[in-house]
Amino acid sequence: MNPGFIPEFTDIEAAHRIVAKYAHHTPVLTSKSINEITGGNLFFKCENFQKVGAFKFRGACNAVFSLSEEDAQKGVATHSSGNHAAALALAARMRGIAAHIVMPDNSPEIKKKAVAGYGAKITFCEPTLAARESTLAKIVAETSATEIHPYNNFFVIAGQATAAKELIEDFGEFDVIMAPVGGGGLLGGTAISTKHLLPECKVIAAEPAGADDAFRSFQAKKIIPSVSPKTIADGLLTSLGERNFAIISEKVDDIVTVSEQNIVAAMRMIWERMKIIIEPSSAVPLAAILEGKVDIQNQKVGIILSGGNLDLGKLPF
Amino acid sequence: MNPGFIPEFTDIEAAHRIVAKYAHHTPVLTSKSINEITGGNLFFKCENFQKVGAFKFRGACNAVFSLSEEDAQKGVATHSSGNHAAALALAARMRGIAAHIVMPDNSPEIKKKAVAGYGAKITFCEPTLAARESTLAKIVAETSATEIHPYNNFFVIAGQATAAKELIEDFGEFDVIMAPVGGGGLLGGTAISTKHLLPECKVIAAEPAGADDAFRSFQAKKIIPSVSPKTIADGLLTSLGERNFAIISEKVDDIVTVSEQNIVAAMRMIWERMKIIIEPSSAVPLAAILEGKVDIQNQKVGIILSGGNLDLGKLPF
Repeated sequence: MNPGFIPEFTDIEAAHRIVAKYAHHTPVLTSKSINEITGGNLFFKCENFQKVGAFKFRGACNAVFSLSEEDAQKGVATHSSGNHAAALALAARMRGIAAHIVMPDNSPEIKKKAVAGYGAKITFCEPTLAARESTLAKIVAETSATEIHPYNNFFVIAGQATAAKELIEDFGEFDVIMAPVGGGGLLGGTAISTKHLLPECKVIAAEPAGADDAFRSFQAKKIIPSVSPKTIADGLLTSLGERNFAIISEKVDDIVTVSEQNIVAAMRMIWERMKIIIEPSSAVPLAAILEGKVDIQNQKVGIILSGGNLDLGKLPF
Repeated sequence: MNPGFIPEFTDIEAAHRIVAKYAHHTPVLTSKSINEITGGNLFFKCENFQKVGAFKFRGACNAVFSLSEEDAQKGVATHSSGNHAAALALAARMRGIAAHIVMPDNSPEIKKKAVAGYGAKITFCEPTLAARESTLAKIVAETSATEIHPYNNFFVIAGQATAAKELIEDFGEFDVIMAPVGGGGLLGGTAISTKHLLPECKVIAAEPAGADDAFRSFQAKKIIPSVSPKTIADGLLTSLGERNFAIISEKVDDIVTVSEQNIVAAMRMIWERMKIIIEPSSAVPLAAILEGKVDIQNQKVGIILSGGNLDLGKLPF
């Protein structure tokens, strides 16, 4: 398959045929008490229950299983210290091919162990973007492995889009669908699925004020990368990719920013009321609702909970 | 209806007709990684997702809706600082009757607020059993409300039994079904449902070593109340009731005890691997498996996760 710059809905249907074979069809939960607090009718798509504990598995799995047999045999490679590394490692193991993961040497032990546990070949490097990129380039040159970027990748975006597709296919029409935004893989995919299936439904992204490059890029109509972003929502520190920005500019209705305090409050509300574990990034859309940045009174709202991976020994409450 | 000393399965069927109307039919979750760690095939019945966050709502709801119209109008009463108080308050509100709850004045603020939030009439007393009982007796004398004991109660036991009934009806045969044991309402009900529907299935209870009155009573074949029990599993501090002991003596295959350390390890394993929030009491059966007290190799095991209420500001990790 010869990918374009941006996936069409047919690409998402193709992705879904792959993803449905290897990933969980995650459940959707509701909470009467959170509905009472917010005034909306909220449906939470639980990607925290996805394999490797995050939506990232959808994209990684689509990328790995979309490779030709010849390319696949050379393996895949990426640099990541987060959920994408674990997702790519597991998807590669499922296909029986090598995954080369470049990780900063200061990555948390728990993440190193998770990626190693999935059988990936890890190369540690200095914790700088330059070191990560040069180390990855060297590995790709040596192995001819295919680089799978965590979000600025056609197949990854198409894979992430399957979460919103499932949500809509399972629960019908929505007034608003919300997702957090970091690099824009999840948000871009969500927007493609939503605007195709429900053209009248608004797609609204939420972003930490401390890492608001997507908000500023959306306003400025050009990519403005993050400089020293800082937020507890560690999945959202990255800046928008080019493919992601192109989709978001065209299909997303609004991007709003939220405070750290409200991210923690929203996360705690979901833990306490819904009895599920979500990572801070997952709490950002509800934080936007609690902060009054999105009007969802009496509206049916889908929210993608991006994942559930965090260090239980370092909670913010 | 005129209850006997111990519910028969027909009483549980009657309870289920009531419970199904007002309570959640909770989901059952599995975890590939916990299966790999334990060597068993585990099915977790998620009463942490039940209304008020605990199985206790089943029993309270059955007790409240089994009252005659005349008795119901006089209200219900109990003394409790825990999940039963919230469960009884909510069930009473659903029926539109008064709930009189006696709480020790040193109860956590979060529990006082929860019970008050369900519209109960709270009377605070000294934090002693004597004060709780005398205060409750006074309220019952004044109001003619029906006392609903948290576990030594026919309708409560029949209500709690519906969790195992649903698990078996949804997932078929099991080799072993496990539950934690405190007062014995959940365990007694679980044993009645299980031994009726699956006579060959073992029912095994797990109890903290620091609150091992059920273990000792089971061995001694008579009730031996707890003296100064101490465990993080705060739902399991109570001693067995008479009805509960009678059922357990007849129908439970074994009771095993576990260390505090393994309760915390099991709780953390469920949080990390399954991304759900359970209270320490819920972790006790898995702790028994991790501790090697129950052999479940290659067996199909049902585990009742009793609830998910705990103070997120005071976690043991």
